[in-house]
Amino acid sequence: MIDLRSDTCSRPTSAMRRAIADAEVGDDLFGDDPTVRELEAATAQLLGKEDAVYVPSGTMANQIAVRLHARPGEAVVTDPLAHVVTVEAASLAGLSGVTTIPVAHERGVYDADAVRAAFAPAHRFFPRTVGPPPAVVWAENTHNNGGGAVWPADRLAEIPAVAAERGLPSHLDGARLWHAALAVGTAESQLAAGFDTVSVCFSKALGAPVGSALAGPEQLVARARRYKQQLGGGFRQAGIIAAGALYALREHRPLLRRTHEMAARFAEQIATMPGIEIDPAHVATNIVRFELTDGDSGAFCERLHAAGVHMLPSGPRAVRAVFYLDIADEDVEPAAEAVRRVVTSAAAGSDPAG
Amino acid sequence: MIDLRSDTCSRPTSAMRRAIADAEVGDDLFGDDPTVRELEAATAQLLGKEDAVYVPSGTMANQIAVRLHARPGEAVVTDPLAHVVTVEAASLAGLSGVTTIPVAHERGVYDADAVRAAFAPAHRFFPRTVGPPPAVVWAENTHNNGGGAVWPADRLAEIPAVAAERGLPSHLDGARLWHAALAVGTAESQLAAGFDTVSVCFSKALGAPVGSALAGPEQLVARARRYKQQLGGGFRQAGIIAAGALYALREHRPLLRRTHEMAARFAEQIATMPGIEIDPAHVATNIVRFELTDGDSGAFCERLHAAGVHMLPSGPRAVRAVFYLDIADEDVEPAAEAVRRVVTSAAAGSDPAG
Amino acid sequence: MIDLRSDTCSRPTSAMRRAIADAEVGDDLFGDDPTVRELEAATAQLLGKEDAVYVPSGTMANQIAVRLHARPGEAVVTDPLAHVVTVEAASLAGLSGVTTIPVAHERGVYDADAVRAAFAPAHRFFPRTVGPPPAVVWAENTHNNGGGAVWPADRLAEIPAVAAERGLPSHLDGARLWHAALAVGTAESQLAAGFDTVSVCFSKALGAPVGSALAGPEQLVARARRYKQQLGGGFRQAGIIAAGALYALREHRPLLRRTHEMAARFAEQIATMPGIEIDPAHVATNIVRFELTDGDSGAFCERLHAAGVHMLPSGPRAVRAVFYLDIADEDVEPAAEAVRRVVTSAAAGSDPAG
Amino acid sequence: MIDLRSDTCSRPTSAMRRAIADAEVGDDLFGDDPTVRELEAATAQLLGKEDAVYVPSGTMANQIAVRLHARPGEAVVTDPLAHVVTVEAASLAGLSGVTTIPVAHERGVYDADAVRAAFAPAHRFFPRTVGPPPAVVWAENTHNNGGGAVWPADRLAEIPAVAAERGLPSHLDGARLWHAALAVGTAESQLAAGFDTVSVCFSKALGAPVGSALAGPEQLVARARRYKQQLGGGFRQAGIIAAGALYALREHRPLLRRTHEMAARFAEQIATMPGIEIDPAHVATNIVRFELTDGDSGAFCERLHAAGVHMLPSGPRAVRAVFYLDIADEDVEPAAEAVRRVVTSAAAGSDPAG
Repeated sequence: MIDLRSDTCSRPTSAMRRAIADAEVGDDLFGDDPTVRELEAATAQLLGKEDAVYVPSGTMANQIAVRLHARPGEAVVTDPLAHVVTVEAASLAGLSGVTTIPVAHERGVYDADAVRAAFAPAHRFFPRTVGPPPAVVWAENTHNNGGGAVWPADRLAEIPAVAAERGLPSHLDGARLWHAALAVGTAESQLAAGFDTVSVCFSKALGAPVGSALAGPEQLVARARRYKQQLGGGFRQAGIIAAGALYALREHRPLLRRTHEMAARFAEQIATMPGIEIDPAHVATNIVRFELTDGDSGAFCERLHAAGVHMLPSGPRAVRAVFYLDIADEDVEPAAEAVRRVVTSAAAGSDPAG
Repeated sequence: MIDLRSDTCSRPTSAMRRAIADAEVGDDLFGDDPTVRELEAATAQLLGKEDAVYVPSGTMANQIAVRLHARPGEAVVTDPLAHVVTVEAASLAGLSGVTTIPVAHERGVYDADAVRAAFAPAHRFFPRTVGPPPAVVWAENTHNNGGGAVWPADRLAEIPAVAAERGLPSHLDGARLWHAALAVGTAESQLAAGFDTVSVCFSKALGAPVGSALAGPEQLVARARRYKQQLGGGFRQAGIIAAGALYALREHRPLLRRTHEMAARFAEQIATMPGIEIDPAHVATNIVRFELTDGDSGAFCERLHAAGVHMLPSGPRAVRAVFYLDIADEDVEPAAEAVRRVVTSAAAGSDPAG
Repeated sequence: MIDLRSDTCSRPTSAMRRAIADAEVGDDLFGDDPTVRELEAATAQLLGKEDAVYVPSGTMANQIAVRLHARPGEAVVTDPLAHVVTVEAASLAGLSGVTTIPVAHERGVYDADAVRAAFAPAHRFFPRTVGPPPAVVWAENTHNNGGGAVWPADRLAEIPAVAAERGLPSHLDGARLWHAALAVGTAESQLAAGFDTVSVCFSKALGAPVGSALAGPEQLVARARRYKQQLGGGFRQAGIIAAGALYALREHRPLLRRTHEMAARFAEQIATMPGIEIDPAHVATNIVRFELTDGDSGAFCERLHAAGVHMLPSGPRAVRAVFYLDIADEDVEPAAEAVRRVVTSAAAGSDPAG
Repeated sequence: MIDLRSDTCSRPTSAMRRAIADAEVGDDLFGDDPTVRELEAATAQLLGKEDAVYVPSGTMANQIAVRLHARPGEAVVTDPLAHVVTVEAASLAGLSGVTTIPVAHERGVYDADAVRAAFAPAHRFFPRTVGPPPAVVWAENTHNNGGGAVWPADRLAEIPAVAAERGLPSHLDGARLWHAALAVGTAESQLAAGFDTVSVCFSKALGAPVGSALAGPEQLVARARRYKQQLGGGFRQAGIIAAGALYALREHRPLLRRTHEMAARFAEQIATMPGIEIDPAHVATNIVRFELTDGDSGAFCERLHAAGVHMLPSGPRAVRAVFYLDIADEDVEPAAEAVRRVVTSAAAGSDPAG
């Protein structure tokens, strides 16, 4: 099975497992775990922030950012396809009582004017009390539902600036920020500059088994540690998993270019197939999102799965394939070939696995 | 000034003020106010429900229904233009931690299939834990942002039925249910049948100064009384305002046809004007929602206000006019005429108030 | 029946009903109700604050203050008998996600050192993340469960000062602040000075049918108006009830001394009875709280009710009687006499109503 | 340093580290991690429940139970020293909007009558809407702040029974349930019988690096998996840490008797010291809680720390020492001796570390 569902399916390597087995640990809740501290310091440095806190998941990193920046009844200003909206909605409302103000966007990327338009004041005839006040402007880079879209560096820099015009903080959901930095040829710290807080994830293409981090100024990270415990993220000898994250950050981050190359090659191959819609120029990182001219994505993924390739529906006609280090270069062509067979046989009404 | 902003601008009449001044009262929090009890009983009877609770506002009636039916992290299933979504979003998330699942609709009206589509199960390849579970199906009749749209009685009856297919309760936001009953020629209790809870508002076209009610089975209304106090709606000698609501229910409800007639006449007149887009056949109750071919609704309302007629923007190009008993029949033509002058002068670049 | 359950049982007088019937009104949600504005201005002036907002209940006024000052997971620092703790607990946690840090007190009154002790930092060996951070210091004057206890003016002034030591805001729950001002011979504005926000209630001994207010600086009151609508307190032609509150503030506030005198007389009479424990020197305002040497307060109140006097249990052995303007001077002796008969007959095992 | 702060300070052994390094893993969010599944099945079986879910911390296991059983504005019925009250208060209110109804207890243990007393209906004269409704009865066994107190098995069985009398569910906080089972000589499943949900912790004396579990009927555990993700507990290749928990459950659980013996020996030794108050008969498991006749626990712990033994204050005069497998038998006497020196020198005013 070639598993292209998500880069979260990446698994620890032997070398990473050795680092894990040898990790120096302590009780992280007492602040005693040296490996967790080392990971937090390394992450903060890479992102150009004062401090960082290690947490169990990207959802927790983002939800802590929500709690830092917004109160109940306030809104996160972001594009409606953002991860925090589409797959964390139950958390956004259910944990923090926060709603959203949508920003017009293209594949998850927008600019300062789009934010200003979303801010547009209610008419003076309206009661001033209708609608949630904006609390934080939120950008996701690379953008998952945007097909791994990358923000141009100068466009991204507009976001903290336009937030500041209204006296608001800004957050960068950088779960895959390493891919963005690679794609635009800039340091992660450069992309994160200006944002109050940044979340990153170690368990996606980076390949660590568990964990994410939230970075920012010391004072906010101190409050974030409280929220981490409040949300139930206060784990103990977390150095065991932090060692995997630290290894991933140091050893796997330099290898990510290969995941972009596989994605690009795959996109070019399927772009020529009848029944597939995709602009290969949009594939800038390790995610490939394409549309089926006919038929539904669920049935397609079922048949593809039967043919030995695993992808996920990403809309009624949309399908997503994600490349990561566990995928071999020589798996790209067979995966594309399986797509061709499923599309063709679906058109012909036959069974590609048969 | 002809004030067509909202039927909430209706004011108590002299006769209603006398009823208010003479109201028998007690401490409602102790359950001692006879006028509140009388209003609650009359409302429950009219809606064909076991009991009802009187509350300060329509938002509170709806938010209590949300708390009755949904837990934090769950979703209200409804059209995205619904009052509970568009102007109560901060409450939905901010008070009760609840989010929404949108249903495809036409002017706020939809059917059972649209609900089933919104319910569509996530694909089996997806983690079952993504996305908020649906908690209640929610219909609004008449539909405010749908331009006072009325649900056909049989279409409305599909909603509790499709909710029951999934074991879910249903709620009817009937803030203007009297208008719907009048428009389709059916009793309010008939329209409310099947819905677990119904909210109605006394301070819109009905003309009472303050208050709404939530009706339903005894057990739910008992819980609703708790939530009323928890939300800060536990008022004391509320018989003073309940007397106004009771008067409105008995004396003004039979008079609402005139508000529909004014709206229809107004719609027919402006439908012929250049620069105005409206289908008069869509105007079924006391609300008229029209679009401007050019120009923005905010500037239009400003100029109209200067010309002595007050309306509210209801979208970038949309404007809303609402008719109620305080508006005289002879105000309809001058209001339409003001619209013509503003549209014409805007096209010509001159000042209609000048 | 002599009804001493609560001063919330006070009813509008004929003169107040006339003021209500004649009230000038508008849609308060649009900011158009002149009587509401007049009440808000009069309240702000009396309390020496920039602005005030009129709301349906004291619970809503307090809960808005909680939302203004505290975020989810933070704590209100106050005595454990405070109204906000004992009868608003479901709101404090259930609406705003806020908990409490208890302060040592005597009959609801405490000083700066007690607050400092409650603030006492966790030991350095403890994780810093355990326990809710304090968000606001909260004083109640007069103190309901403290038996109408009054804060000495200089003691009260310590509260905003000790809060400021920690950079925290302070709130004064002044539901019965008029009684405190009367008892210590100081203006309400003097007592409220230093507190960021103050809540007052018009529907207790003051005698208005409905409503409370929250006063504070303009910026906080602007946010409070949002929360009012979010909580469902956005009523429409509220001038109808605001007129009653305005009348109460102007005409009834100067008459409250009589309620103190009745309470004092009642306390002196029952203090001499066997089976009753009370220090008449503690009765400083319109509330009398006494303990039964034997027997439970529930059974006592039942028998007293049968004897024509209505009081409420206020603890397993404690009973509360509250005096207000609807109670006649000549009702004091019969009420005390009924207490004597019930206590005596209970001791003798006979039936006082018999 | 002899570290008796908490059994959460236990560290993975070499053998456990090998099990961790060799763990078979998958993406747990997709339900693909076989080691997590194995741990969940083993835990469910041990507790006699249908299913269990593995989560990052005991706080998350408990808070998920709160969300399963209680809605905002409702109350957990338990003793006021319970872990969920004392160190999870910010979560209880801040995440789930839930408050508490306190039960009278002795060292964290109570009986059915105490619960019935806490349930005692408000007097009929009171508004029924005051106070939070009880949602779940909650017992903690062993009881941390009760000094590791153990519930007699029949007493514990009263709790689900008395909850059922009111139609309420019950939860057992069994973070250290293995110690309770050992102390009363009963299987964990026997103690857990009757309770709807049970939480257990692998990272206390059991010695796993990370994680807890919540067990219960299938339907509740399915909802719990949603809440786990909503709270940010959805980790990926969690088999890495689950392998440690599984090893701890199988290999360390049979060894816990030694931790009880060390605690008992330590308690007997310090019980004879002047300045120390403790009843050794109360020490039933691995926790020793004692009081200082004079002086404060903070200063005591500081001096003890300087003398090479680390304990935590557990109240103004109370100190807690916790024994676990990392503590050697031969550390007991030196630890007791250090206590003697610090108490004696404190009385004499000298410095034990000097």
